[in-house]
Amino acid sequence: MRVLYHLTLSPAARKVRVVLAEKNLEFTLKLEKTWERRPEFLALNPAAEVPVMIEPDGTVLAGTDAIVEYLDEVYREKLLIGINPIDRAEVRRLCAWFDVKMNLEVTENLLGQKMMRRYGGQGQPNSQAIRAGHANLPNHLDYVGYLVERRRWLAGDHFSVADITAAAHLSALDYLGDVPWEGHDPAKEWYARIKSRPSFRAILADHVPGAPPPAHYADLDF
Amino acid sequence: MRVLYHLTLSPAARKVRVVLAEKNLEFTLKLEKTWERRPEFLALNPAAEVPVMIEPDGTVLAGTDAIVEYLDEVYREKLLIGINPIDRAEVRRLCAWFDVKMNLEVTENLLGQKMMRRYGGQGQPNSQAIRAGHANLPNHLDYVGYLVERRRWLAGDHFSVADITAAAHLSALDYLGDVPWEGHDPAKEWYARIKSRPSFRAILADHVPGAPPPAHYADLDF
Repeated sequence: MRVLYHLTLSPAARKVRVVLAEKNLEFTLKLEKTWERRPEFLALNPAAEVPVMIEPDGTVLAGTDAIVEYLDEVYREKLLIGINPIDRAEVRRLCAWFDVKMNLEVTENLLGQKMMRRYGGQGQPNSQAIRAGHANLPNHLDYVGYLVERRRWLAGDHFSVADITAAAHLSALDYLGDVPWEGHDPAKEWYARIKSRPSFRAILADHVPGAPPPAHYADLDF
Repeated sequence: MRVLYHLTLSPAARKVRVVLAEKNLEFTLKLEKTWERRPEFLALNPAAEVPVMIEPDGTVLAGTDAIVEYLDEVYREKLLIGINPIDRAEVRRLCAWFDVKMNLEVTENLLGQKMMRRYGGQGQPNSQAIRAGHANLPNHLDYVGYLVERRRWLAGDHFSVADITAAAHLSALDYLGDVPWEGHDPAKEWYARIKSRPSFRAILADHVPGAPPPAHYADLDF
């Protein structure tokens, strides 16, 4: 059986979970407290980060992009990175938008401060960072809205890893109750479509012990 | 003619320049002072970052990974991301190591503080960040050394984008005189091989007005 090392609220791990589910690939989740730096885990990924995936034949894959690109190359029944080089470039541009730019401006400032510090034992959250995260988030909701007012999905006509990447970040932030959906109707309508996909069910069923999600988190009609 | 918008010391833009040169693809460089946020440039890339590439047919590509993956998909005479899915995963894992982990721990702390702040007008360099960058850099030289003591190139038998990515960061830091090559012989020997490649000539000829490189920067026998 395929194994995926993850953290429940890690957007990077959520991205791989949804890609696997979209492709109907079975896997077992293993929670990895990366901050414990287990030697056995460091041997799998010296960067000490999730996700790490072990294929049924024992092949070890580390790193979000490495795993997602591998899955789209090997399991081709349903392609998630686009079907021609130009479409694929647009999907990858948007993945970097959310995984690099939004991650730095929002996710690290909110999720990183509130949860990773709390569970990773890196001290008290930095209130200045949290304010910056809240201030930056509406820009990214606006960008999602801008895109889906012009296209069916973020990168074009087809659902893609760009949608999964944005939803991975927003779902983790939504678990914290940090996403101001009101006033961002196009982004909210897009996220409602994401939430209704079977591949997202496990994400919506997530539960971090001692930190339950707000009531609307799993609600398809939020 | 293909156009590449860049900044001279941007590791992301250097990566694309070397990929283009390795593939013998001609291009014209245009210097883009991203901090000026020119509306015409924002229309090409709303993230306001280099590299942005315009293909001869007018196709606009933004984002390092998007451009590099596109080039390796379309111009296939010399493949730089590996030839099978597992090799490609290892190349991409290492690209993330340097573009994400080393970038955060080292490049942003040194290059970001010293040059981008100076030219980008974001205030004085933060001496604590610069100390952290210097403290972290030897770990990454050790990792390069660890890899090339076991493999011909960073990701395996073949020269790849993993080598180009590591060299893009290290060359920009070396321009600042910040790389402690002494005491890191395996990494130094690997970088000497990189410097001797024709694709690296233009990088070694770079010159930022008012900030000349140290004498060893362009020296193949440094």
